[in-house]
Amino acid sequence: MNRQTGAVLVLSGPSGAGKSSLINKVIDDIGECYFSISTTTRPMRAGEVEGVHYHFVTKEEFQKDIDNDNFLEYALVHGNYYGTSLKPVKDALAEGKLVLFDIDVQGNTAVNNRLGEITTSVFITTPTLSELKNRLYKRSTDSDEVIENRIKMAKREIQRISEYDFLIVNDDLDEAAQTLRLIAQAARLKVSNDIINDFVHKWEDIES
Amino acid sequence: MNRQTGAVLVLSGPSGAGKSSLINKVIDDIGECYFSISTTTRPMRAGEVEGVHYHFVTKEEFQKDIDNDNFLEYALVHGNYYGTSLKPVKDALAEGKLVLFDIDVQGNTAVNNRLGEITTSVFITTPTLSELKNRLYKRSTDSDEVIENRIKMAKREIQRISEYDFLIVNDDLDEAAQTLRLIAQAARLKVSNDIINDFVHKWEDIES
Repeated sequence: MNRQTGAVLVLSGPSGAGKSSLINKVIDDIGECYFSISTTTRPMRAGEVEGVHYHFVTKEEFQKDIDNDNFLEYALVHGNYYGTSLKPVKDALAEGKLVLFDIDVQGNTAVNNRLGEITTSVFITTPTLSELKNRLYKRSTDSDEVIENRIKMAKREIQRISEYDFLIVNDDLDEAAQTLRLIAQAARLKVSNDIINDFVHKWEDIES
Repeated sequence: MNRQTGAVLVLSGPSGAGKSSLINKVIDDIGECYFSISTTTRPMRAGEVEGVHYHFVTKEEFQKDIDNDNFLEYALVHGNYYGTSLKPVKDALAEGKLVLFDIDVQGNTAVNNRLGEITTSVFITTPTLSELKNRLYKRSTDSDEVIENRIKMAKREIQRISEYDFLIVNDDLDEAAQTLRLIAQAARLKVSNDIINDFVHKWEDIES
């Protein structure tokens, strides 16, 4: 019964906090995962690949998925829609996988509302705002306006860290990765109420 | 900031599920701990030691501690009082220790009400009721009446597993210990809202 069942790990935090680098460092050590790919209406950036970084769709296509209740969660950020399709998540959970989400604070709330009992959430941030600014300007993939928007959003999101199960301050990448690895391994052990009810139901009946 | 801060690990489950054996197997691997010793008015059993298994007190002494609001939680079980004194828990948390509680479902509720943000809870049980009965009768430290009471309580408590963060089915002791070790290590990473607020407050101010 201590078998692996599907569970969810939400990773949030400012763009520039190093979420992707962290995930890449731990992904091979945490067993079978499904990395949820968000759908977005924002334009593709240089170097981005459809189906890898995002599913890129038009506003009309996105609106149709909203109308058909196909999203686990969606939000409007900086004038663009971002959302998570429900079906691939359900399929991955049914296969016993750990579903990873890289989503914002609103997304975390939505995932917890739907899948709270099997969800572990982690907020990842830089040690300071200055450090975040440094990293965002250094990587120079975004315009100054986009960077300023990211910083404003970071200042808002950081106020809501207490909504998360864990906080990782990404100061030392190896140390932060070790922490995330441990959290992800524990996250896998969460079981749904369906499985618990099934266990409880059988517990009294089975004669060993 | 990924420093060790005080956190809480609640372990519940039927008497006979092997909590003590499990704790003994993992205690050396999970860093600085404080094992909360309950206070009880029940008579000492053969082999029990004051201050190790319980603090044994009279009903009058227990009532005085209730009146002085000295308990984190307390409950009346099988006609005897059991409670957890608040002060040593607070002291251990201030020293950054992981505080371990071996308490019942009511106790878990009480601890979560007071210390929920830094609490991880685990329910430990046998694979089946029959197996629990076998273990209780085999260890023969209790009278048949006490065993019947334990079994009744187990049947009630098992209905409330979904109130716990994790379920460990203690079928294979080594496997269960490995699971508990992982959960305990992750449990340590929880931080209080005070620490988060302090971090958030400094995050914007510190110029690196």
